[in-house]
Amino acid sequence: MRLRNKPWAEEFINSHPEIIIPTPENYKGKWNEAFGNNNPLHIEVGTGKGQFVTGMAQANPEINYIGIELYDSVIVSALEKVIAANTPPNLRLLKVNGADLAKYFTKNDVSRVYLNFSDPWPKTRHAKRRLTHEGFLKLYESILIDNGEIHFKTDNRGLFEFSLISMSEYGMLLKFVSLNLHADEPKDNIMTEYEEKFSAKGQPIYRLESQFISKA
Amino acid sequence: MRLRNKPWAEEFINSHPEIIIPTPENYKGKWNEAFGNNNPLHIEVGTGKGQFVTGMAQANPEINYIGIELYDSVIVSALEKVIAANTPPNLRLLKVNGADLAKYFTKNDVSRVYLNFSDPWPKTRHAKRRLTHEGFLKLYESILIDNGEIHFKTDNRGLFEFSLISMSEYGMLLKFVSLNLHADEPKDNIMTEYEEKFSAKGQPIYRLESQFISKA
Repeated sequence: MRLRNKPWAEEFINSHPEIIIPTPENYKGKWNEAFGNNNPLHIEVGTGKGQFVTGMAQANPEINYIGIELYDSVIVSALEKVIAANTPPNLRLLKVNGADLAKYFTKNDVSRVYLNFSDPWPKTRHAKRRLTHEGFLKLYESILIDNGEIHFKTDNRGLFEFSLISMSEYGMLLKFVSLNLHADEPKDNIMTEYEEKFSAKGQPIYRLESQFISKA
Repeated sequence: MRLRNKPWAEEFINSHPEIIIPTPENYKGKWNEAFGNNNPLHIEVGTGKGQFVTGMAQANPEINYIGIELYDSVIVSALEKVIAANTPPNLRLLKVNGADLAKYFTKNDVSRVYLNFSDPWPKTRHAKRRLTHEGFLKLYESILIDNGEIHFKTDNRGLFEFSLISMSEYGMLLKFVSLNLHADEPKDNIMTEYEEKFSAKGQPIYRLESQFISKA
């Protein structure tokens, strides 16, 4: 995503600590305190402009959601969207790096990880940066419940092919695969901004659901 | 594949026992005797008109190949193709039902199973007939070497999605996936008749390589 300079972003972010949590490390192992309930927590790594996570939070009030986005200039758009949706009580944003998840979450904190239209990092030498690389799978497993799930959408064929292999090699179970999501017309699919733009061109969206297999 | 009535088919088949083996059950556990060597054996289940298996046999003389096709009216086309290719010594055909593989092969007889453009059997109540259904995977595993492989190509999205899940649930490892085989321009891809026709229309061909994981 192209990053525009938004000098007002930092102030806007800091003025909404009820949405973008300023010290998320304080909630590690006790996210129920942040939400005031014991509902399952689903996180989206790379939330972008926030349409998906906001839509999910509105559609599923019995699930807690956290959208994670590193860049000021992007997360402000998500923040605007959350406010426009009247700040759903089951939704928070974190302005942190996805590679640092273990600083903010611990085993069993999270029930599901969403990855939507993640950067494909097409060059082989950048493979480790792909959010479905073994290193990230290990990270997700370390914060998920047993048999926790990853739900992944992308329009990028190379990244999807890589992800199928990476998850299989990791020993994960594939539970659902669609190679043309919108041809199957799922009723409850909430689109990202990117997905709306992309699928309008008639290009296929790939989607999978996979599950970690408890070694115990 | 549409089956045309070919009354001369039976006679033509019977007149080429050096290609279409009349009593394949005699070679169960000793296919090396049929080929006169100990080279690995790759089989194609559902050989159709034989272009793929004939091309593979010509390209890889150090591998033995068996094409399996049930229908007289189809296998005669494969027979014609084998003869036109000067009957490669590393190639045989079997006119048997793929569901009966265990009658003709036993554990360790086969190193690799090829499935090309298998019947998708799109109706849920026919799922068991799909050549990547659990029942068939069990059958292949029972005749393959340890860590034996399945190489699968299809243009049918539903069948490919089903196969990814079926193999994952079976505990197989995905080693290679392409969601647009011809966009990747593999140098050594040998096309089936169907594949030539289909990919000329610009529709994607899906391909995977998967491996059974030895439980020992």
